[in-house]
Amino acid sequence: MHARVERDGEVDEVAVEEPLEIRVDGEPLAVTMRTPGHDEELAAGFLHGEGLLAGAPRFHPTLDANAVDVAGPLAADLGARRFYTTSSCGVCGKGALEEVAVHAPELAVGPRVARALLAGLPDRLEQPEFARTGGLHATGLFDAGGALLAVREDVGRHNAMDKVIGRSLLDGTLPFRDRVLCVSGRLSFELVQKAAVAGAPILVGVGAPTSLAVALAADRGLTLCGFARGGRLNVYADRARVA
Amino acid sequence: MHARVERDGEVDEVAVEEPLEIRVDGEPLAVTMRTPGHDEELAAGFLHGEGLLAGAPRFHPTLDANAVDVAGPLAADLGARRFYTTSSCGVCGKGALEEVAVHAPELAVGPRVARALLAGLPDRLEQPEFARTGGLHATGLFDAGGALLAVREDVGRHNAMDKVIGRSLLDGTLPFRDRVLCVSGRLSFELVQKAAVAGAPILVGVGAPTSLAVALAADRGLTLCGFARGGRLNVYADRARVA
Repeated sequence: MHARVERDGEVDEVAVEEPLEIRVDGEPLAVTMRTPGHDEELAAGFLHGEGLLAGAPRFHPTLDANAVDVAGPLAADLGARRFYTTSSCGVCGKGALEEVAVHAPELAVGPRVARALLAGLPDRLEQPEFARTGGLHATGLFDAGGALLAVREDVGRHNAMDKVIGRSLLDGTLPFRDRVLCVSGRLSFELVQKAAVAGAPILVGVGAPTSLAVALAADRGLTLCGFARGGRLNVYADRARVA
Repeated sequence: MHARVERDGEVDEVAVEEPLEIRVDGEPLAVTMRTPGHDEELAAGFLHGEGLLAGAPRFHPTLDANAVDVAGPLAADLGARRFYTTSSCGVCGKGALEEVAVHAPELAVGPRVARALLAGLPDRLEQPEFARTGGLHATGLFDAGGALLAVREDVGRHNAMDKVIGRSLLDGTLPFRDRVLCVSGRLSFELVQKAAVAGAPILVGVGAPTSLAVALAADRGLTLCGFARGGRLNVYADRARVA
């Protein structure tokens, strides 16, 4: 989604960034800066990544274009937890170091995929809004043969992944088991965490991983690939799935 | 700051990402995923951007390498506010749309700077850790003649800006008035907000702005320049300062 702005006296297009309020039974829980569209997927993926859902969510109707109201089923009493997430923030609302890591399920053995195929996945990410604005991240869901199953674009990299995971949750196709996630940017701790909670055995990124991303992937047994560009990539954890 | 990891059976270097707990008088207030180093600057800049400080902060000693303990002076009673910020998250802890915008001071008229000079600022950003790891954002503080006064690198773009602003706060040089901030990536709402609260009249980015970033810059009268690459840039708000 893009908007027209004035730039140097001419009309230009930029990526839309607006706040989304995620509510649970009418109560505000989180605000995230996101690109509008697929908002129920975003809410579903965000709450799933936080371990707050007991299944695919239902939604209350709302007249507010910048709000989503989740009707459950909840996995936990939310208590006083309140989040504020920006366009790149996936795990807000926790106040102590030991709460950073969300428990992820044991990963499936998963597929074994050729290195060249993994390295080529970024070229298969369809990013029409990025092409217009240069201002969006993307996450793609691929099968083990490299076919693109879903892709979402957002100003926030975490939102793009939340939307893909949320779509899958709403479709009843989680955990991923034999799927590959591919992101258009860098690989932070939170992206690895979201992928692991969704059960994805392989995560590929165009950019660099951080130290904590590598450590978490190694701990979870998740295959982490970075710098996927020009037909090459680096494997930072669990090379057994890379043929 | 970088760490050595195994990559495809060889040793590689990645940017370090670790959580930092920001405390106020011993009480946990926020957790941010950041690159260690300049942590007091980060805490100072973060709290300043949130409007929580009444001046340059003092610090309690702490033995925890991943914690900073601020001793005030506070501008507001923190009450039950608690934040969790990731490596890209600057304004956590708020639960409603109307609280997103932090009040910023009226900007100075500021300098008038040649377009070619602004377009060349990214080339003057010194990024030794990015050169090693490919995994860090940077914010640079420049004078109106294009001289680099300070630069900070971090896995989180908001942290890099918080560190530069925090350094200036500790040095007693805020608001910026006649300075130019330059960031290595995209221009989100939060980066414009932080720059505006610090009084910077001009913000330059290598990447694309979002719609809300443009809107906020226009509202505050901040000169916003994006896509500063190859000797060119686009001006999205307040062109009067671009000669």
